[in-house]
Amino acid sequence: MARADILLTPGPTPLPPQVREALARPIIHHRTSQYRTLFKRALQGMQQVMETSQPIACLTSSGTGAMEAAVVNLLSPGDEAVVLLGGKFAERWQGLCKAYGITAITVPVAYGDAVEPGAVGKALAAHPKAKAVFATLCETSTGVVHDIQAIAAITRKSPAVLVVDAISGLVADPCPADAWGVDVVVTGSQKGLMLPPGLAFISLSQRALDLVSQSKTPRFYTDLRLYQKALTDDDTPFTSAVSLVVALDEALKIVLERGLPQTIERCALMAKATRTGAEALGLTLFAKRPSNGVTAINAPAGIDGKQIPKLMYDRSKVMVAGGQGEMAGKLFRFAHMGYISPEDVLAGFAALEDALGALGYKFTPGSGIKAAQAVFAQPAVAGAVR
Amino acid sequence: MARADILLTPGPTPLPPQVREALARPIIHHRTSQYRTLFKRALQGMQQVMETSQPIACLTSSGTGAMEAAVVNLLSPGDEAVVLLGGKFAERWQGLCKAYGITAITVPVAYGDAVEPGAVGKALAAHPKAKAVFATLCETSTGVVHDIQAIAAITRKSPAVLVVDAISGLVADPCPADAWGVDVVVTGSQKGLMLPPGLAFISLSQRALDLVSQSKTPRFYTDLRLYQKALTDDDTPFTSAVSLVVALDEALKIVLERGLPQTIERCALMAKATRTGAEALGLTLFAKRPSNGVTAINAPAGIDGKQIPKLMYDRSKVMVAGGQGEMAGKLFRFAHMGYISPEDVLAGFAALEDALGALGYKFTPGSGIKAAQAVFAQPAVAGAVR
Repeated sequence: MARADILLTPGPTPLPPQVREALARPIIHHRTSQYRTLFKRALQGMQQVMETSQPIACLTSSGTGAMEAAVVNLLSPGDEAVVLLGGKFAERWQGLCKAYGITAITVPVAYGDAVEPGAVGKALAAHPKAKAVFATLCETSTGVVHDIQAIAAITRKSPAVLVVDAISGLVADPCPADAWGVDVVVTGSQKGLMLPPGLAFISLSQRALDLVSQSKTPRFYTDLRLYQKALTDDDTPFTSAVSLVVALDEALKIVLERGLPQTIERCALMAKATRTGAEALGLTLFAKRPSNGVTAINAPAGIDGKQIPKLMYDRSKVMVAGGQGEMAGKLFRFAHMGYISPEDVLAGFAALEDALGALGYKFTPGSGIKAAQAVFAQPAVAGAVR
Repeated sequence: MARADILLTPGPTPLPPQVREALARPIIHHRTSQYRTLFKRALQGMQQVMETSQPIACLTSSGTGAMEAAVVNLLSPGDEAVVLLGGKFAERWQGLCKAYGITAITVPVAYGDAVEPGAVGKALAAHPKAKAVFATLCETSTGVVHDIQAIAAITRKSPAVLVVDAISGLVADPCPADAWGVDVVVTGSQKGLMLPPGLAFISLSQRALDLVSQSKTPRFYTDLRLYQKALTDDDTPFTSAVSLVVALDEALKIVLERGLPQTIERCALMAKATRTGAEALGLTLFAKRPSNGVTAINAPAGIDGKQIPKLMYDRSKVMVAGGQGEMAGKLFRFAHMGYISPEDVLAGFAALEDALGALGYKFTPGSGIKAAQAVFAQPAVAGAVR
C-alpha cells in the first residue's frame, strides 16, 4: 500500500498529469512543420514567463549548460566580470569564469545573506572594464532571493550586462527581464516549469547579442550564434529534446492559463505558509531574504540536521532537501514551486513534525501544520492557492 | 480517422510502449539511492551495448554535446587530429576541431563512399603527432557504415586514440569497443536506443582517460573529469535528465533481453529487405557500404527527390528523411533501427510506391513491397525479425 513519494525538493519538482501525458506521446520528428509550430509556440510562452520580447535559445542540457553558454558567449579569455556570491550555485558562476580564463571580481556574502545592491555598484565602479555581472535570482542552496530589480538598476548605469541564474527562481520569484533590464536570464526545466530536467533556456538582450558576436571564447554546442540562426527557422542547431519540448508546451499552458503573476503569487503564499509553520514549531529560517520557491530552515540546536530529511523520507516518504557543502547538517529545504500544492506542504509539515518528534525535539504536536493550514485558510489566500 | 504517423526517420526513431510508460512516471529525485541504483544499472547496460568494460559518461545533451566532450577532453589547442570525412556528420568533427583550435588532417571521400582503412594508415604515417582519429560508424547522411574494425587495427599501431561517432550506428551496426580497440565511442539516445533525444554517452579507454587528464582545452559542462569523479557515487556532476535515464533503463531491458547480436541482426535483415525492395523498384542505393541502420536510396532520374519524402508524408503519413546539404533532392533515407518493425518497413514501401506513382515514375506496382516481404518471409529471417 506504499503511497507515491511526495517531492518537496527544489528540482526536480513534481510533474503535472498533462506533462506526464505529453512525455508519453509517440515521438514526433523535429524537422517538421508540426514540430516547428509547437517549438515556436513554446518559445513564445517562454518569452511570456521570462517577460521579454528578446530571443531565447533552447538548449538540450541541464541548467549549467545554459550558464556555460552565457559565460562563453558573452566573454573572452582575460575579460573581467563581477560575480555575486552567497551559495553553491552562485559559486558555479565563479567556477565557470575560472574554467574559461575570465577574471572574476567576487562580491562575497555569508551563506543565508543576500548581496547588497550597493556592493554591486562599488564593484563596478572599482572595475569599470567588467563586461558582465553574474547574479542569482533564487540561490537554491540557501533559499535567498536577490534584489535583482535593484541590482539591474545599478548595473544598467555601467557598460556591463547583467546575467541572472533564474534556474530555480523563474515562475516563483518575479524577474521581468525587459522591465527590470536584465540582459540575460538563464533557466532550467525542472523547477518552476514543472518538467523533467533536460532543457535549459537563455534570453539575450540586444546588448548581450552584441557581446555574443564579439566573444572570442571557443565554443560549438553552446554557440548561441548557431541557436540565433536556427531560430529564424523555428529550429535548433542540434537535435532538440523533442519530448521535453512537447511537454514544455503543456506546462506553459498551465502557467499561462493561471497567469504568471497569479502563479508567482501562489508560490509566495505557499512560502508564507511554510515560514509560518516553521516558526510555529520554534524553528528559525536560514535565509535573510527568503525566496518564494524554496524555504531553508535551520536544524534546531542539538539535532543532527541530516537526520531530518532522512527520517522524513524513511518514515513518511516525503522528500525535502538537506544542506549542501558547508551547510550540510545545518539546514533543510522545503520547495514550494511548480506543481507542489498546499496539500503537499501540509503533508510536509506532518512528516517534519513526525521526524522532529522522533529526534527528541520539544514542540507542541500539530502546531506547525496548524499554523500553515491557518495561512491557507485565510479567505484571500484560499482562492489564490487553488 | 487519421492514423498515427509512421516514423522511418534516422532519429528520432519510434518509442516502444515500455519507454513511453517510463517517461510518464512520476519524477524521482536524482540524489537518492533509488536513482543511483537505477543509474548504475543503466550505465552497466550501456557498457553491454557499447561492448566495453570501461567507464561511460552520461551527458544531458544531444549527440553533438558528447562529440564536443570528446574533442575538448582529448585534445588541446594546436594538437593535430585525423578526421575521416564522407558526410554531414563526419564534417561535424571537422567543425568541432576548427572551433577548438585543433589542426584537422582530413581524409576526404566522396559522399556515399566509405573511407579506405589504408588511407587512415597513410594519414597517421604522414602525421605522427596526431593524437586522435575521429571517425563515424554509420554516416547518417549517406547511409554508409565504415569499417571501424580495420580502422581501429590500423590506428592501434599509432599513438593516436580512435574516437567513433556511433550516434546512429550503435545497436544497429557492430562496434565492440574493447574487442576492436575503439578508445572512445560516442552515442545519442534517439536512434538505436529507442529513446527521445536528450541523452548522450561517451566511453573512454585507459589511453583516452590519460589524454583527458592532459587536455588543456577549457571546459566545464563537458569536463569528463567531473563525470568520472561523480561516477564513483553513481552520480552525474550536473542534474541528470532523470526521466530519460529511467526510460533508458527500460529500453536497455528490451535490447538486452533480445540480445545485442540478435538486435543488430534484426536491423541487418530489415536493411536487407529495404535494399531488396528498393532494387526491385529499379532504384539504386547511394551508399557503397550500406549500414544496418539507414538505407539511402537515389531518387530516380527525372524525379525531384525532395518530392518523394514529401508525398510519402502528405499522402501516407509515413516519414522518411530526404538528403542533407548537397545531397538534398538527390536521395531519400529509410531508417530501420530501434523499434522500427518489418511492418513499418512494408508500410514504408507502400507509401514509397504510392509517391513514386504520383510522380510519374514507371515501375510494376507492388514489386517493391513484394520483394521486401519475400525477404521477411524467408524462414531464417522470419524468426530473427520478430
